[in-house]
Amino acid sequence: MQPSKGRTKREAAPRDCNIARTLDLVGERWTLLVMREVLLGVNRFDQIAKNTGAPRNILTSRLTALVEAGLLTRRPYSDRPPRSEYVLTEAGADLNPVLQTVMRWGDTHLPTGQPPPTVLEHACGERFAPQVTCACCGEPAPPETLTALRLGGRDR
Amino acid sequence: MQPSKGRTKREAAPRDCNIARTLDLVGERWTLLVMREVLLGVNRFDQIAKNTGAPRNILTSRLTALVEAGLLTRRPYSDRPPRSEYVLTEAGADLNPVLQTVMRWGDTHLPTGQPPPTVLEHACGERFAPQVTCACCGEPAPPETLTALRLGGRDR
Repeated sequence: MQPSKGRTKREAAPRDCNIARTLDLVGERWTLLVMREVLLGVNRFDQIAKNTGAPRNILTSRLTALVEAGLLTRRPYSDRPPRSEYVLTEAGADLNPVLQTVMRWGDTHLPTGQPPPTVLEHACGERFAPQVTCACCGEPAPPETLTALRLGGRDR
Repeated sequence: MQPSKGRTKREAAPRDCNIARTLDLVGERWTLLVMREVLLGVNRFDQIAKNTGAPRNILTSRLTALVEAGLLTRRPYSDRPPRSEYVLTEAGADLNPVLQTVMRWGDTHLPTGQPPPTVLEHACGERFAPQVTCACCGEPAPPETLTALRLGGRDR
């Protein structure tokens, strides 16, 4: 995103933006770590708790919120005792690019001197390095190629 | 990311992962909204405060943390009174793909019945819809094309 001109002179209200609305829903460390686990195929409470390190009461509230928000659904896997596991919805699966770009940032900018703990391999056989491209033309989209527009005028 | 097999039987420690390490640094709503503003070319405290709606004491602490973490630097723009603005480092600019994919998720899954409040236009002239592709082969990378690997064995 790059600077753009012409904002209205007074702008008392915060910027109305889908980044903010999305972060209200999932912009919290434990929530995103829970989604990481389910995206990796870990569906059950105990294993999600272990892999994230989330306190169990926090995990319960995050999972409930994610089900209510439509990113996960509950699927029973045992009658006695009654137990459910957590399964991705389409909206949940669509968080994948967010977590991929977060992981990429960490791999690049938080070097430990060790290889990254988890590595993704793409179907092409190479280690997966996500890059963001324009879905329309297929070209990369560094900040200088993007202009923010707002309904009714250019954004700032 | 898709499920993969063969984790060790006991896994007491949380998953060691650069997603978690990145979220420790920037996985907080106000922090990401501050980065959104600077990526949009808004560099000064008062305007960042207005556009994010962040309380000023929270904004001060988030900006300080982002400077300490090396995502922003301070650049003086006035001697009397002494005033600085906040400028992206390379690490800060590299958060762009994260915010782009967050915005895309919100545009898709949090419909308001209105067009999205902020729209990005790509240099190709079309509205920018970010997609994540493999930097190596250029192909898209949906979950079924990715396998998580861990040093010393496959991940789960």
